[in-house]
Amino acid sequence: MQMRDWGEQGFIRHLRQEFPIAHNLVGIGDDCAVIPKDSEESWLITTDALVENVHFIKEQMPAREVGYKTVAVNVSDIAAMGGTPTYAFFTIAAPKTLEYSWLSDLVQGLKEACDLWNIQLMGGDTVGSHHDLFLSLTLMGISRQSHLKYRHTAHPGDILCVTRSLGDSGGGLKALLHRLPFSERGQKLIQAHFHPLPSPSEGVWLASQEAVHAMIDLSDGLHRDVQRLLEASHTGGAIEISQIPLSEELQEASREHGWNPIELALTGGEDYCLLLTIAPESFEKIQKAFSKKFQKNLVEIGRITDRVGELSYLDHGQLVDLLLTPFEHF
Amino acid sequence: MQMRDWGEQGFIRHLRQEFPIAHNLVGIGDDCAVIPKDSEESWLITTDALVENVHFIKEQMPAREVGYKTVAVNVSDIAAMGGTPTYAFFTIAAPKTLEYSWLSDLVQGLKEACDLWNIQLMGGDTVGSHHDLFLSLTLMGISRQSHLKYRHTAHPGDILCVTRSLGDSGGGLKALLHRLPFSERGQKLIQAHFHPLPSPSEGVWLASQEAVHAMIDLSDGLHRDVQRLLEASHTGGAIEISQIPLSEELQEASREHGWNPIELALTGGEDYCLLLTIAPESFEKIQKAFSKKFQKNLVEIGRITDRVGELSYLDHGQLVDLLLTPFEHF
Repeated sequence: MQMRDWGEQGFIRHLRQEFPIAHNLVGIGDDCAVIPKDSEESWLITTDALVENVHFIKEQMPAREVGYKTVAVNVSDIAAMGGTPTYAFFTIAAPKTLEYSWLSDLVQGLKEACDLWNIQLMGGDTVGSHHDLFLSLTLMGISRQSHLKYRHTAHPGDILCVTRSLGDSGGGLKALLHRLPFSERGQKLIQAHFHPLPSPSEGVWLASQEAVHAMIDLSDGLHRDVQRLLEASHTGGAIEISQIPLSEELQEASREHGWNPIELALTGGEDYCLLLTIAPESFEKIQKAFSKKFQKNLVEIGRITDRVGELSYLDHGQLVDLLLTPFEHF
Repeated sequence: MQMRDWGEQGFIRHLRQEFPIAHNLVGIGDDCAVIPKDSEESWLITTDALVENVHFIKEQMPAREVGYKTVAVNVSDIAAMGGTPTYAFFTIAAPKTLEYSWLSDLVQGLKEACDLWNIQLMGGDTVGSHHDLFLSLTLMGISRQSHLKYRHTAHPGDILCVTRSLGDSGGGLKALLHRLPFSERGQKLIQAHFHPLPSPSEGVWLASQEAVHAMIDLSDGLHRDVQRLLEASHTGGAIEISQIPLSEELQEASREHGWNPIELALTGGEDYCLLLTIAPESFEKIQKAFSKKFQKNLVEIGRITDRVGELSYLDHGQLVDLLLTPFEHF
């Protein structure tokens, strides 16, 4: 048996079995680990890695964007639990032949992201590698204990919603890989792929709402991440695909290139916005306040159900059977 | 210009310039970053990475030892600042073809080390890679604020000392790389290379002594690490090479294979014991108490001087000129 047979999820399950977490801590399995800070606040800690030719192609993605994204993907995890990022630790394993200019652009991208979110880079490690270029960031953040949101706390009946249109990043990756002519529209999708915009301020505000029951960030595509939320919460879910928000750019590019935008929204991954569940009686109030505060929509895309482990897709109310091939690293 | 011209130290200097640290925090440049925890204690945070064919050769090192060592090298950093390790975050980037049995042995080694030092694994990331196998651990620890020890606080006149014999790990690596017949003696050196034994309890105790002025862990060889300490402290140093503690095994293996054991002690690296400086008037008292508490010697190897940036080597009091090629990843 090899890593590809076991899979990322299988390996994480194995780690959870081998390393049971003390009951007052939340470890392996949510967006961040949670460690009590004082009587009011908790530390949130997350680690995400980017590997050349797996997460980015050096010839296609500017070094500055690689640096920015290394921070941004971790900020997304902190935002998903309602936290504000604080301290970062950056590790790079690079072959000897890596160009100075690439590295110095990478550092500028790290700096851009750290400045944007007021993050202090505190340390890390710099080592050699033979082939691959490997970047990893550990990010700490702070959240009020009473506002922490998890993925295991969705209730049947909750409204499922997202904070942004989905699939742009997946479309951008498709445009890059197929070397499609870079129209202005294509550039916007590619920009969504290179330069994700997680929003801790949205995360903190949503987390402060009692009626927001569960939250997770969308990193591996709606299909996969909603499954994670349902599994952790021991619930089911139903998604109305006609309600999934799609950008103008993605819809136009999909028409032009014959893509299925819904499939990109479900499996493209790397949206780095929030997926959350809200008690139905409070949804409208929260949606209005969110819209007023952030000048954007909280978009309802489905419901949490009591059919444990069952995720169904509807198209204008009719059950549909989607053939999806979710992304798997290994 | 490429990474090999810049070097690990050049890159770290660049990061320090780009990311100045707020004055109440200690970041990039010591063994650990220091973040205030409460009025009495601080968090220590460190990250160390191991890369296949750079830090270990998969065919030569059992997976369980790779897992153990991934934790141990980080424990050494926490020990060097007088801390006790607490929480770990583990990241692996592995090719799809990595064998299940190797991974599951790796996890057993992680577990062995976490159990040994009472560390809770809290999270991490699992991603794919194309060629290299990459392991990284971020480790948190706790120290009393008043006991924290740094590398920048050595005083001229201080006695330089180490907590264990040096060069065994370097000798073990040499034996492995040259495929020398594995005598019992050779096995002990290889064991020192595979299974380092940092000691946070020694670190915590030494850190509690006011007369211990500066501390650093020996990871890249005495020559390199003492230079770091001198540079950070704006002092000089003199090392009496006849006082450098060498194990019986290393001395015998050196005689047999024509190695220079002093060179292994100075540049072999990966000793993972402590290098510290002690006020001369308190040295004897601390040495005695250390010996009583830990049944081992605190070995004097030299002095801190006021000749800023100058590191000299003496052999029985005579200045010697050593030609050393210190280890550099890039």
